[in-house]
Amino acid sequence: MSSESQTPNLSVEDEAKAQSKKAAKKEAAKLEKQRRRQEAASSAASASVAGISIGDTPDPLASNYGDVPLLDLQSKEVTGLKWTDIGALTEDLKDQKVLIRGRAQTIRAVGKNIAFLVVRQMGFTVQCVLTVAPDLVSRHMVKYATGLSRESHVDIEGIISVPGVPIKGATQQVEVQVRKLYGISKAENLPINIEDAARSESEIEKALQAGEQLVRVNQDTRLNYRVLDLRTPANQAIFRVQCQVENIFRQFLLSEGFVGIHTPKLIGGSSEGGSAVFRLDYKGQPACLAQSPQLHKQMAICGDFGRVFEIGPVFRAEDSFTHRHLCEFTGLDVEMEIKEHYFEVMDIVDRLFVAMFDSLNENCKKELEAIERQYPFEPLKYLRKTLRLPFQEGVQMLKEVGMEVDPYGDLNTEAERKLGQLVLEKYGTEFYILHRYPLAVRPFYTMPSYDDPLYSNSFDVFIRGEEIISGAQRVHVPDFLEKRAEACGIDVKTISTYIDSFRYGAPPHGGFGVGLERVVMLFCALNNIRKTSLFPRDPTRIAP
Amino acid sequence: MSSESQTPNLSVEDEAKAQSKKAAKKEAAKLEKQRRRQEAASSAASASVAGISIGDTPDPLASNYGDVPLLDLQSKEVTGLKWTDIGALTEDLKDQKVLIRGRAQTIRAVGKNIAFLVVRQMGFTVQCVLTVAPDLVSRHMVKYATGLSRESHVDIEGIISVPGVPIKGATQQVEVQVRKLYGISKAENLPINIEDAARSESEIEKALQAGEQLVRVNQDTRLNYRVLDLRTPANQAIFRVQCQVENIFRQFLLSEGFVGIHTPKLIGGSSEGGSAVFRLDYKGQPACLAQSPQLHKQMAICGDFGRVFEIGPVFRAEDSFTHRHLCEFTGLDVEMEIKEHYFEVMDIVDRLFVAMFDSLNENCKKELEAIERQYPFEPLKYLRKTLRLPFQEGVQMLKEVGMEVDPYGDLNTEAERKLGQLVLEKYGTEFYILHRYPLAVRPFYTMPSYDDPLYSNSFDVFIRGEEIISGAQRVHVPDFLEKRAEACGIDVKTISTYIDSFRYGAPPHGGFGVGLERVVMLFCALNNIRKTSLFPRDPTRIAP
Repeated sequence: MSSESQTPNLSVEDEAKAQSKKAAKKEAAKLEKQRRRQEAASSAASASVAGISIGDTPDPLASNYGDVPLLDLQSKEVTGLKWTDIGALTEDLKDQKVLIRGRAQTIRAVGKNIAFLVVRQMGFTVQCVLTVAPDLVSRHMVKYATGLSRESHVDIEGIISVPGVPIKGATQQVEVQVRKLYGISKAENLPINIEDAARSESEIEKALQAGEQLVRVNQDTRLNYRVLDLRTPANQAIFRVQCQVENIFRQFLLSEGFVGIHTPKLIGGSSEGGSAVFRLDYKGQPACLAQSPQLHKQMAICGDFGRVFEIGPVFRAEDSFTHRHLCEFTGLDVEMEIKEHYFEVMDIVDRLFVAMFDSLNENCKKELEAIERQYPFEPLKYLRKTLRLPFQEGVQMLKEVGMEVDPYGDLNTEAERKLGQLVLEKYGTEFYILHRYPLAVRPFYTMPSYDDPLYSNSFDVFIRGEEIISGAQRVHVPDFLEKRAEACGIDVKTISTYIDSFRYGAPPHGGFGVGLERVVMLFCALNNIRKTSLFPRDPTRIAP
Repeated sequence: MSSESQTPNLSVEDEAKAQSKKAAKKEAAKLEKQRRRQEAASSAASASVAGISIGDTPDPLASNYGDVPLLDLQSKEVTGLKWTDIGALTEDLKDQKVLIRGRAQTIRAVGKNIAFLVVRQMGFTVQCVLTVAPDLVSRHMVKYATGLSRESHVDIEGIISVPGVPIKGATQQVEVQVRKLYGISKAENLPINIEDAARSESEIEKALQAGEQLVRVNQDTRLNYRVLDLRTPANQAIFRVQCQVENIFRQFLLSEGFVGIHTPKLIGGSSEGGSAVFRLDYKGQPACLAQSPQLHKQMAICGDFGRVFEIGPVFRAEDSFTHRHLCEFTGLDVEMEIKEHYFEVMDIVDRLFVAMFDSLNENCKKELEAIERQYPFEPLKYLRKTLRLPFQEGVQMLKEVGMEVDPYGDLNTEAERKLGQLVLEKYGTEFYILHRYPLAVRPFYTMPSYDDPLYSNSFDVFIRGEEIISGAQRVHVPDFLEKRAEACGIDVKTISTYIDSFRYGAPPHGGFGVGLERVVMLFCALNNIRKTSLFPRDPTRIAP
């Protein structure tokens, strides 16, 4: 039940097979053991297996460099050695000996006696220098260094020095005078270079004007080699910001008395209905993947948790080939009892997101700068108290600039963008709530407005003209809910356990759902949601 | 992309259909509007629609009680009224007027002039008293109160009084002298009573000895009516403890420099292989649900995040009908670069879980007491520094008590339990790490031991004799990884994107996975994992 794969529980008839398989594995392991004894014996002759020869002279300093054999990386011993993080290398460490581990980002030889390595660890880089010197650094060692492949991991022991001039090619303003250099793991030929992947559009343009054609890595190539692409400073920052968005979401809600829950993603029947659902066979029963935790988070309210939130994957089989749709994304969901008005839900949205934006601006400065360097953007404009615009007013604003919108229909993407512009001009905010949507464009469980059943107690929230949140008061009366489901063409039988949950007393309640990837994308004004999903899934992509 | 269902993106040919559907909805909404105008008009005549008549006398206090019509609960207005939480009702509020909302848990009439209601809100209960008094409480009102169905929601306005004797039937030691009583939502006939569901086995036994047969609600019935079952104090506490386990997990790891990530649950090919996988069609491509975030969390390490964790659903299509297996559960996963030894991963496990247990014991006292009242258990015994027992030593301990175990095989459930007992007797702990497992019983990505390839750099962690965590150093060399996968009978083609991730330089790394439900189950010594899953999924259950 722990999250890692274990030997599966076997049926009686599988046992025999497993036994013979086990015997075969043992045999394989024995052979492997022999092979490795030989390897160990040969590598013991010299720590360096780099196979460097300069003339025929054996290098008396050979033990100071070379590739570390795998055997030495298989938890051989706890040496007590201390590694220093590259991000922690500062002038305070001048003249001290340090041990670092990182990737050889760039390798440059200057003649045969000097080599420069820029070594990177989680976005931080330091320049490491090898200079041939008697009893310290041999020419063999410099040759070994310059023969390293980019992105290989190295362990470097060296002395910290502080150069008189600023270092441009690295984040840390010190150098490491290398004394020992060991290859930990080798990178093969790279399909994309990190420098290319990290380049901004404006750098490419500027170079072009100067007559130089720099490599532009397109979005699809990035995703094909995502583990390389993720190493750029901007991507390292994006996913740290994303983690922070989630942290603030959790911490804020916990402080407001919400309980974090986990609802099932495997659902009998067809979730909330519709075609945009992934279907599967569940032990002979038809099932699907939850399109949202909607039904079960409401059931948790019927189970008396009062205020709940959930962070988890959401699955949409929609054929949406846009910059803002994914087939799997991370939903941040909230559901809460309300006393009398859906504004209580909007109050939470308001305070939660203002707190979130404040915290990101305050605590993620470095990350936002790293993103901004590759993908320039203006900080989000938002008010201390979030604007709440009635839908009808929004329609009116659009009408006044000549954009006719069905007052009982939904806004299309163009209208949403336009309204975002108008709101920014009139109210000075790029973050606002549009509420009291037409009932006909909302899901069946949405509570109609008390004074006009053509409208509903619902809202969407926009950042920079794009929707990130949907929310509403829900129908808590089972018979009315059933009627609404039927009216929306949903097969009530498939959601009977949901509707029945309201038969044992259900409080008035409401909630909302947020797309985590969209929040990060729009806060940083990125142009594609694939940039904020670690391993995105869209209609044509299910790898890596 | 927000987590709630939106009108799906429509293809061109669907647009027309949607338009006519929309028109039909508008028509339906108009009719509904008319119907409700009428309802509103008739209910405006009196707030009470309870239909109570005692003789023919109209009650001059009729506006003080009755069912609130739905229309008044559809966000009609923000009144500024303040509700007090039932858990906050203390003697400090003596003689003050309060407004509360909760469920009528029990309703008891004493003659025609007095009624007692126990009203519950999120596990807290308060006794509310109606006593007929001129100009305050009418007999009609008492009759209305006693006619309420259990578990219905009510709004009560009343005066706090402090009785001279302790109140046994409620958590709060004050009473509410009811002045106004409104029904907010009605419960239909209950299939199970909360008191029955909340009863401990020992209460049932004790009553039986006294000749009284009390209702025992079995596990399956509980799950069939989970929204009722969840309302018991023990269940309210279990899921608050679960939330806390997750909080501590996150906070500890964040403080140690880990980044929270989200990896895809939709995987091309067959995840880590094996039959225990849910398969589905992904836009015409074969796909499956991730059996763990194993492959992608390692890929995040190849993407330079250094230290990552993930909290998310894990899917196992195993036919395991045990007290500790689910088809969907919440995985707490960790992956991290290591410098030289898998003990670095075990160090994190050690400190994380000791911190977690300490925090639960310190900060969840009330919740643990609530669980203990229904399901008695002894507090978990654990050491300040977690015991690390080599697998071979464990085998030897079992041998010494006459239990022969294959030193190159896995421990079965019986052996695990026995070893748990022996460890408790010898070391005084119910929480320990068993490490250096035979390679043959671990997943293909497990790093063999440096000195004996029949063993591996892996570990399991046990609470009260049951496994909750699996972890290991991983193979970070792509060619070796490929060989290991082949040796374990895995079709390497299906995991090529995973293996290729290691070709661009991969650091030595390791990690572990924990089952959230198991941690809570075993910390509280519960007998069934279905008790710690909000809406459990097992081979025969996919509802509610």
